Amino acid sequence: MPSSTPTPETSGHATAPAVAPAVAPAVAPSVNALSERLVARLVDNAARLGVAITHTDAGTVIADAGVDARGSIEAGVLIARICMGGLGRVALRASFEPAPLWPTMIEVSTSSPVLACLGSQYAGWSLAATKEQTGGKKFFSLGSGPARALAVKEPLFDELGYRDQHERGVLVLEVDRLPPQIVIDKVLHDCGLAPEQLTLIVTPTHSVAGTVQVVARVVEVALHKVHVLGVPLDEIVEGTGSAPLPPPAPDGIQAMGRTNDAILYGGRVHLTVRHDEVARSLVERLPAATSRDYGRPFAEIFTSFNFDFYQIDPALFAPAEVWVSSLESGATYHGGRLDGGLLHSQWGGESVAP
Amino acid sequence: MPSSTPTPETSGHATAPAVAPAVAPAVAPSVNALSERLVARLVDNAARLGVAITHTDAGTVIADAGVDARGSIEAGVLIARICMGGLGRVALRASFEPAPLWPTMIEVSTSSPVLACLGSQYAGWSLAATKEQTGGKKFFSLGSGPARALAVKEPLFDELGYRDQHERGVLVLEVDRLPPQIVIDKVLHDCGLAPEQLTLIVTPTHSVAGTVQVVARVVEVALHKVHVLGVPLDEIVEGTGSAPLPPPAPDGIQAMGRTNDAILYGGRVHLTVRHDEVARSLVERLPAATSRDYGRPFAEIFTSFNFDFYQIDPALFAPAEVWVSSLESGATYHGGRLDGGLLHSQWGGESVAP
Amino acid sequence: MPSSTPTPETSGHATAPAVAPAVAPAVAPSVNALSERLVARLVDNAARLGVAITHTDAGTVIADAGVDARGSIEAGVLIARICMGGLGRVALRASFEPAPLWPTMIEVSTSSPVLACLGSQYAGWSLAATKEQTGGKKFFSLGSGPARALAVKEPLFDELGYRDQHERGVLVLEVDRLPPQIVIDKVLHDCGLAPEQLTLIVTPTHSVAGTVQVVARVVEVALHKVHVLGVPLDEIVEGTGSAPLPPPAPDGIQAMGRTNDAILYGGRVHLTVRHDEVARSLVERLPAATSRDYGRPFAEIFTSFNFDFYQIDPALFAPAEVWVSSLESGATYHGGRLDGGLLHSQWGGESVAP
Repeated sequence: MPSSTPTPETSGHATAPAVAPAVAPAVAPSVNALSERLVARLVDNAARLGVAITHTDAGTVIADAGVDARGSIEAGVLIARICMGGLGRVALRASFEPAPLWPTMIEVSTSSPVLACLGSQYAGWSLAATKEQTGGKKFFSLGSGPARALAVKEPLFDELGYRDQHERGVLVLEVDRLPPQIVIDKVLHDCGLAPEQLTLIVTPTHSVAGTVQVVARVVEVALHKVHVLGVPLDEIVEGTGSAPLPPPAPDGIQAMGRTNDAILYGGRVHLTVRHDEVARSLVERLPAATSRDYGRPFAEIFTSFNFDFYQIDPALFAPAEVWVSSLESGATYHGGRLDGGLLHSQWGGESVAP
Repeated sequence: MPSSTPTPETSGHATAPAVAPAVAPAVAPSVNALSERLVARLVDNAARLGVAITHTDAGTVIADAGVDARGSIEAGVLIARICMGGLGRVALRASFEPAPLWPTMIEVSTSSPVLACLGSQYAGWSLAATKEQTGGKKFFSLGSGPARALAVKEPLFDELGYRDQHERGVLVLEVDRLPPQIVIDKVLHDCGLAPEQLTLIVTPTHSVAGTVQVVARVVEVALHKVHVLGVPLDEIVEGTGSAPLPPPAPDGIQAMGRTNDAILYGGRVHLTVRHDEVARSLVERLPAATSRDYGRPFAEIFTSFNFDFYQIDPALFAPAEVWVSSLESGATYHGGRLDGGLLHSQWGGESVAP
Repeated sequence: MPSSTPTPETSGHATAPAVAPAVAPAVAPSVNALSERLVARLVDNAARLGVAITHTDAGTVIADAGVDARGSIEAGVLIARICMGGLGRVALRASFEPAPLWPTMIEVSTSSPVLACLGSQYAGWSLAATKEQTGGKKFFSLGSGPARALAVKEPLFDELGYRDQHERGVLVLEVDRLPPQIVIDKVLHDCGLAPEQLTLIVTPTHSVAGTVQVVARVVEVALHKVHVLGVPLDEIVEGTGSAPLPPPAPDGIQAMGRTNDAILYGGRVHLTVRHDEVARSLVERLPAATSRDYGRPFAEIFTSFNFDFYQIDPALFAPAEVWVSSLESGATYHGGRLDGGLLHSQWGGESVAP
């Protein structure tokens, strides 16, 4: 799912069968090494990007991209590239059509979709602390980005057959406050990093940068559902996608709903897979419209289930429109479609006659 | 207005009320420092970009991008990025639609719209010399780009609360000949630079690079009208836009008209502002269609007023279509529309049956 | 023609009249020097790009981007930029329209179209070896890219008036196996390079990277036909274009047909030329639809002529849609049109109702 919230299938109930490692170790680059240059750019340009850089007493770098700091679209794009382990291209784009789905789009592409999206970008690492542990409010966030592959706390990494080793790491937390020290210590411990070797980037869902980095998960959401569907991950060799970039909604549920809607109703993904049968299967099973819950704004669905994620059909978490090309046959298939009407009804976009 | 010609509202009759500084000094980067790398790229690649580099006897660098040199689109894109103080992304894009507004577009985005557009890109610095002073023809040009913020000769900088300090500076002159020494000396004096610390880039309106760098002002034109409308500048937090890139017209009036038309009838801007009221107000008041003079090609309007800019309704200088998102409400509004028919009737684009 | 196959007009029967050199020596950059940084990036990131780097005993670098290695879209984009001698911008783009021609496009632009496309990217250097020479199968490939301008074995370089000199060189071979040593030795000899100074990049037509680098020839194909039509090359000052990126077809004839169809039926080019008469002439004569053979998939045409290229009308090798702007008049004309129906019927793209 786009938003960094636990989905049923990520809570230890993996539905995918065990498969051969999808990321061949010999050719696997270090997602933490590849993103290091981008992290440096975020830190060096923090002021103009609206990002506040602080350091813990022990030296861990905290990049606030939307809690107290204002953040920015440009920060969000850079964070999205970091989150993909330096293996993806993410860009803000303008629509040129006379009546666009949306004027401003996020465009994503990667030739390492499994490693970039599941090995790094996926928000799969649960980081929690109780009130007792924090000495204040309890804390929960899902961690995404390269440092997941240092810690390898998720069963997913066994399937990927990937483990990163690097003397620096970066983790993205989609949460509305800075992490308590006990959570930082857990990350350091699990990643095997000294305090000054870790950068934590914090992007609230309701922030501008947070919205960008979640919408930029359009290919990752597709990859995750591919995994849930039990398709061997080494089938997926290329991934490209786009989704509209709305402003954040001030309300938390609405903000989360909005980034989900950007993908569920406005996201288009083009995957290249090895086999024709997989391609045909994916265009039938992958689009969000295959879900029984499809058709209503995400915030409305979530509310109707009394804010219980585990009641939502996991099949909903997918791009609206899916194109899949097969290397075996050379054929391309597509399924699903964009629903601009739903997006405009939710996000505004009403024309005001001048 | 897109073209570097004085508009009524920039001649000391600012209609905007005094507001708190829109650019917080603590986080303000140096537009001259940020653009220095791009200036070096322009100079280092001058030959292939069609730019002729010369030096005055005292060492000031003159980059001719269209007077005697041919210039190029690529030079224009680079100059546009320089003009935004390194704070904007500018790119040439192809349209993919079956019947595009125009096949080739300029795309612009910035997460520092006020500083990039008004603090740097806006052509607000009048540089004139009489026949007596030049020993030849009288000279007039508006200066745009980073060095404006070193000289801070315009009242606008008081409102911005921004003043750059850097040991190098760059200024763009939209004029059809190289500046006389007396103008160069004035720029050096006002900027507090030694001769070899200044680069002057010259882009005639009727040149390829000049056309690009003016069309790339699509977001700046919106910001300038926002300012004219009296909206506090710190309302504007993000800006993205696009406009079609025509070839230059050989005739001066037509060339100026063409770059204006690209924005007035072909420009689309998406702004993010803080408050909902501002967003709603801007989509009603910002589009070019709000002007009494809207609807005819700019060259025709200009001619009808006997080439007297001060007769043209200042409200005309705005993008055709405006989308504004509000952080307060999360809503997005839009007003105005693109007019491909007017552009095609002016620029050609007639289909020739093969 | 898009595919690296000999066309009638490149076999010593140049139809263009002798003209003044189209690339002025004084301003001509070194295409091998400009691409050197991109070659280093390909080699340094080979593993994640799916490229296998080997060295001959003597030290020549062989980059396999699709023979035994899998290659990737990202590798193909980088190879396309190398092939244009570092003088072009090539990018993978997503389509945002509700019903796109194709979801994934290749976008190309260059402000040095003649040098980038004809002086470097054009596949004009025939490299052959007999069975006796190879000690195995006979070998044939057309060489494209910067090293052509070191060897200057083609009459085209006399017309261009361009010859590169650089201590390193790179050549792209569109062929389905690695070149034999005798061909490598010929390239080294003709380029005047020591073995370790040469990089050979191999991209089979039926590979992902090969498909990208051929589709990225959309502007080059236009330039080549401009040349065949006898238009003086110094007329062409800017070139931008786009074409849809299909997956490779597994069958060789189909793969070649597919990359041709991407340009002949899905390619759009926007050229800027000096004179109005040239602009008007080109929109009438340049589009693929001017050919008697236009209208059927390329593989079908090729098959109907018993796989004899010399029977195919050379006028077919051109973009589907052509826009040409004239600096003389400022007018823009266009001819031809995209044919999404033909592409979808060939490549799939049928919608599967979810």
